[in-house]
Amino acid sequence: MAFTTSFKVRFADIDLGRVVYFARYADYAHRCFEDFFTEGAKLPYGQMMERQRVGFPIVHAEADYLSPLRVDDEVRIVMEVLRLTRRSVTSRFTLLRGATDERCAVVTLKQACVDLEAFRGTQIPDAIFAHFSAHLLEET
Amino acid sequence: MAFTTSFKVRFADIDLGRVVYFARYADYAHRCFEDFFTEGAKLPYGQMMERQRVGFPIVHAEADYLSPLRVDDEVRIVMEVLRLTRRSVTSRFTLLRGATDERCAVVTLKQACVDLEAFRGTQIPDAIFAHFSAHLLEET
Amino acid sequence: MAFTTSFKVRFADIDLGRVVYFARYADYAHRCFEDFFTEGAKLPYGQMMERQRVGFPIVHAEADYLSPLRVDDEVRIVMEVLRLTRRSVTSRFTLLRGATDERCAVVTLKQACVDLEAFRGTQIPDAIFAHFSAHLLEET
Amino acid sequence: MAFTTSFKVRFADIDLGRVVYFARYADYAHRCFEDFFTEGAKLPYGQMMERQRVGFPIVHAEADYLSPLRVDDEVRIVMEVLRLTRRSVTSRFTLLRGATDERCAVVTLKQACVDLEAFRGTQIPDAIFAHFSAHLLEET
Repeated sequence: MAFTTSFKVRFADIDLGRVVYFARYADYAHRCFEDFFTEGAKLPYGQMMERQRVGFPIVHAEADYLSPLRVDDEVRIVMEVLRLTRRSVTSRFTLLRGATDERCAVVTLKQACVDLEAFRGTQIPDAIFAHFSAHLLEET
Repeated sequence: MAFTTSFKVRFADIDLGRVVYFARYADYAHRCFEDFFTEGAKLPYGQMMERQRVGFPIVHAEADYLSPLRVDDEVRIVMEVLRLTRRSVTSRFTLLRGATDERCAVVTLKQACVDLEAFRGTQIPDAIFAHFSAHLLEET
Repeated sequence: MAFTTSFKVRFADIDLGRVVYFARYADYAHRCFEDFFTEGAKLPYGQMMERQRVGFPIVHAEADYLSPLRVDDEVRIVMEVLRLTRRSVTSRFTLLRGATDERCAVVTLKQACVDLEAFRGTQIPDAIFAHFSAHLLEET
Repeated sequence: MAFTTSFKVRFADIDLGRVVYFARYADYAHRCFEDFFTEGAKLPYGQMMERQRVGFPIVHAEADYLSPLRVDDEVRIVMEVLRLTRRSVTSRFTLLRGATDERCAVVTLKQACVDLEAFRGTQIPDAIFAHFSAHLLEET
């Protein structure tokens, strides 16, 4: 089961080439990851960091750019969990142009679970693990 | 005695109007404030926050936009302390186009000294107060 | 009649002081200005720039910071037009914490109407002028 | 022959986890790509876009995060061209902590050469191709 969020491209997201700055796509994917907690699990992302003292720093990121996003575009992001272990999660974020469903980019993030006191790897808390599990991509 | 720093306008700083995004000028001014510590006082800004546990959140900001900065421009910023009390500092940052000395913007920031544990106003530590004092604009 | 928009503070909006970076408030105000066109007037901001060839660069900006915005906060922004001439508009953006209605910041922007071909001042097109007029703050 | 540039981590680059926001590393790599033109080839990046009417949008990006960058860190970036064709260039950007030479991240960008009028792939202009060639990683 995929998680979906959407928002608008902003004036300030545009670069000199008149399209969304490439590094912004990774930022967009992270916003979806935040919404996955805040809206999907009713556990606001900042609260999670402050109460549970865990964070999910990125270990590896990849992005394929297919079609440029432009100002006024509505971006719809579909998040699917590709791989899940007790200590890390790899998710794929597909960025679509809202008006046409055109795939504009695919971002993949591998994130480790980290104890924020020690800044060291730790186990994903059970409730969060269950939330990731529920969005794990089914093998076909 | 004014403090001066400079850096280049970046590709990503540009907005849809092909000039530097207006909110970025405030960010540029803050970079100069950081360099005022790091280079001017040999007290790196992050270290100051972490060792002395004080920060300088902005209380009031103003900016006049005179001529747009563009990609590849070298920005030179001149910082002068306009007013200084034991608990706050007001500084003026004049942004010049490096190549021509043209004034592009004037940003004024009033910053309070805050104890970062309590997030409450506190006295500016002596060494920092002295550094501000040395850059206080002379009355004419 | 005030125009209102709202959105969430993002993980990346936070600075080393664990609150929203001060320059971001100006960016938030601009997002509201964009929504004022896109949602309020059904004239997407980028389209306006590209079809009508006008833009609204900021001439003067001011901000008062009252209470820090933090991660997960919902920001509600109320926009009112304070002054309107044929060639410029001054608007006030009041940023409220969504959960409590607490005023967190007040940003005021004076924007000139500019012909984007010539990057020179021009008259505000009639339809846009009417839209601003409808949100002009009533004298009391 | 590698190209090298360096700059400081800024207060505003930090996220809620107190380290540089992950999407910022891609931005840092792009700054190095800009300097490769501006300083390396004495052809300022924006001028290149405006005079030669070509740009280098990112087609694919990858990043490995090895050690977090923090406020006040000096970042040194080493750029090497990994693959070069008449129509695209793939470069590796190694981000080092200036003080210790520790490798903090490796970013790889594949960029197509695009005619900015038509936003369509085109041949890399000869002078730019030669500049990339001079930084092509030697096979060992």
